[in-house]
Amino acid sequence: MTKPTRIVITGAAGHIGYALAFRIAYGDLLGPDQRVVLQLLEIEPALKALTGVCMELSDCAFPLLDGLLATADPNEAFEGADVCFLVGARPRGPGMERNDLLSANGGIFGPQGRAIAERAAKDVRVLVVGNPANTNALIAATAAARGGSGAGNRLDPRQFHAMTRLDHNRAISLLAANTKTPARDIEKMTIWGNHSSTQFPDLAHCRVAGRPALELVDQAWYRNDYIPAVQKRGAAIIDARGASSAASAASSAIDHVRDWILGTRDSDWVSMGVPSDGSYGIAPGVVYSYPCVCRNGDYEIVQGLPVDDWSREKMDATERELREERAAVEGLLS
Amino acid sequence: MTKPTRIVITGAAGHIGYALAFRIAYGDLLGPDQRVVLQLLEIEPALKALTGVCMELSDCAFPLLDGLLATADPNEAFEGADVCFLVGARPRGPGMERNDLLSANGGIFGPQGRAIAERAAKDVRVLVVGNPANTNALIAATAAARGGSGAGNRLDPRQFHAMTRLDHNRAISLLAANTKTPARDIEKMTIWGNHSSTQFPDLAHCRVAGRPALELVDQAWYRNDYIPAVQKRGAAIIDARGASSAASAASSAIDHVRDWILGTRDSDWVSMGVPSDGSYGIAPGVVYSYPCVCRNGDYEIVQGLPVDDWSREKMDATERELREERAAVEGLLS
Repeated sequence: MTKPTRIVITGAAGHIGYALAFRIAYGDLLGPDQRVVLQLLEIEPALKALTGVCMELSDCAFPLLDGLLATADPNEAFEGADVCFLVGARPRGPGMERNDLLSANGGIFGPQGRAIAERAAKDVRVLVVGNPANTNALIAATAAARGGSGAGNRLDPRQFHAMTRLDHNRAISLLAANTKTPARDIEKMTIWGNHSSTQFPDLAHCRVAGRPALELVDQAWYRNDYIPAVQKRGAAIIDARGASSAASAASSAIDHVRDWILGTRDSDWVSMGVPSDGSYGIAPGVVYSYPCVCRNGDYEIVQGLPVDDWSREKMDATERELREERAAVEGLLS
Repeated sequence: MTKPTRIVITGAAGHIGYALAFRIAYGDLLGPDQRVVLQLLEIEPALKALTGVCMELSDCAFPLLDGLLATADPNEAFEGADVCFLVGARPRGPGMERNDLLSANGGIFGPQGRAIAERAAKDVRVLVVGNPANTNALIAATAAARGGSGAGNRLDPRQFHAMTRLDHNRAISLLAANTKTPARDIEKMTIWGNHSSTQFPDLAHCRVAGRPALELVDQAWYRNDYIPAVQKRGAAIIDARGASSAASAASSAIDHVRDWILGTRDSDWVSMGVPSDGSYGIAPGVVYSYPCVCRNGDYEIVQGLPVDDWSREKMDATERELREERAAVEGLLS
């Protein structure tokens, strides 16, 4: 038995954290042979609720769960971490402007990035789920690349991802319903850009049971119905369920990290928010969702996909939003 | 690929149902090679929320999820069902007496038992999670044994279980903490009787890393602290988390059915609420939690365990409660 994997969940008493912790403790992230230690971080006022979550986790008697820590201290939470799910974030309050939201979250993700650099394993993988996820990931990655205050690691920004897998999975789900095909038969879905309403779900390369998706769906439906439906899926779920997506967000976070560590399917790729290296003409540095292939515990952006003018415009629009977000938090990055 | 397993969850938009559905759709119940169809039942007022749950389930793009049905019609929900998780139940309202609660639930579980007999697969397995679980299971089993109104199956009461696995897992969890042993090294835990505060968590046969549990723990702690702590664990979690156990209840339900179908560990047993066959002098027919071993998709009550006078008294007290519950719903059983 190899040593247990140390997994951090921040905001662990929230709905997504609650959906995430039990599935990871059972083995859904790394399989039935890998023991795990859960290191759960919450803000002080949620610590009592977090204690209840820990009681329930213990009460599952999970054979793979080797340890359980609940704390409000980031340094303690990130100690030795192999994987971090950064779920906890400041939600947008009434009357809060986007820039206020970005700064408030900067105040969370900057210090967390530093603590991760100081405390976590050198090859730690970090997935930012808390919104605005892409720019929160940029802030954490920037802080971590600078290293901790002590003799900490300087981490590679490539170790910090933002989750667009939920958008990717939603895009598959809505295409599966339209084409009456099982989700497992849909490949090469792509979400470009920001995890926001400017994201671009792109069917140009997507295949449905081996056939090009764009041969199977109506162009007007794709442009006028499908794309907005993917972009607004979160709101549709809140409307129906009376609560925001929790289990599907948690499931997508598991998918993202599992594929990052264990690899993507041979003939497929996934969408991941990763630091742009300039691929497809996107501003280097911004955390942008690209089609990615994972092998040997690392990812690569899929190269050489043809992009037509209509798609180019959509890819640029969501990039522009990310550059604006970056500009709004410039003070936190320098 | 074998044909998909049809799995019903009642009360599927509630907290336990929400925690259960996603884990089953991922494969936690039957493993990564068994496709599943989820057939979700809710009461009419919860159908909109259930639609939201279905949207989220679709949005996970689970490769094993072959179909998804949401309905308020039990006949539709139970059609062809291989496994039923009966989670939805009438909660105790303010000022409601135990007998009122039993009758109100009888009005749910009797008709569900009949619908299962009429519609489900002949070898259906039913786990009752909704409280009062043991007597709800008795009511459903009795209705199903009589067969449906048409040319339905007459089902064997052995196909109807009540969940005491959560108590079993909690008992392991609290013993693991006290003995500083991983949960996976605790074997032969037993919960006798009713899923209520009269249940008897019995350490007489339990082993901790191969050693008798009763050699490792203080007798006074066992009798005065441990047993009440297991019995009142649910309330302790509500106090800490501000919400009742959902994920741990769902996890235990998965454990119960997985072990029932795929078998228990070689050197171990589990606790299951099953119709008494008179074993250990318990009134035949009442659904009583026993230590059980599962092989080839069936269960057997572990026989021949020595029972001392002190334990006998506890086993009888919880049996008495179950006989009283049965008497209170006599009108529904005849």
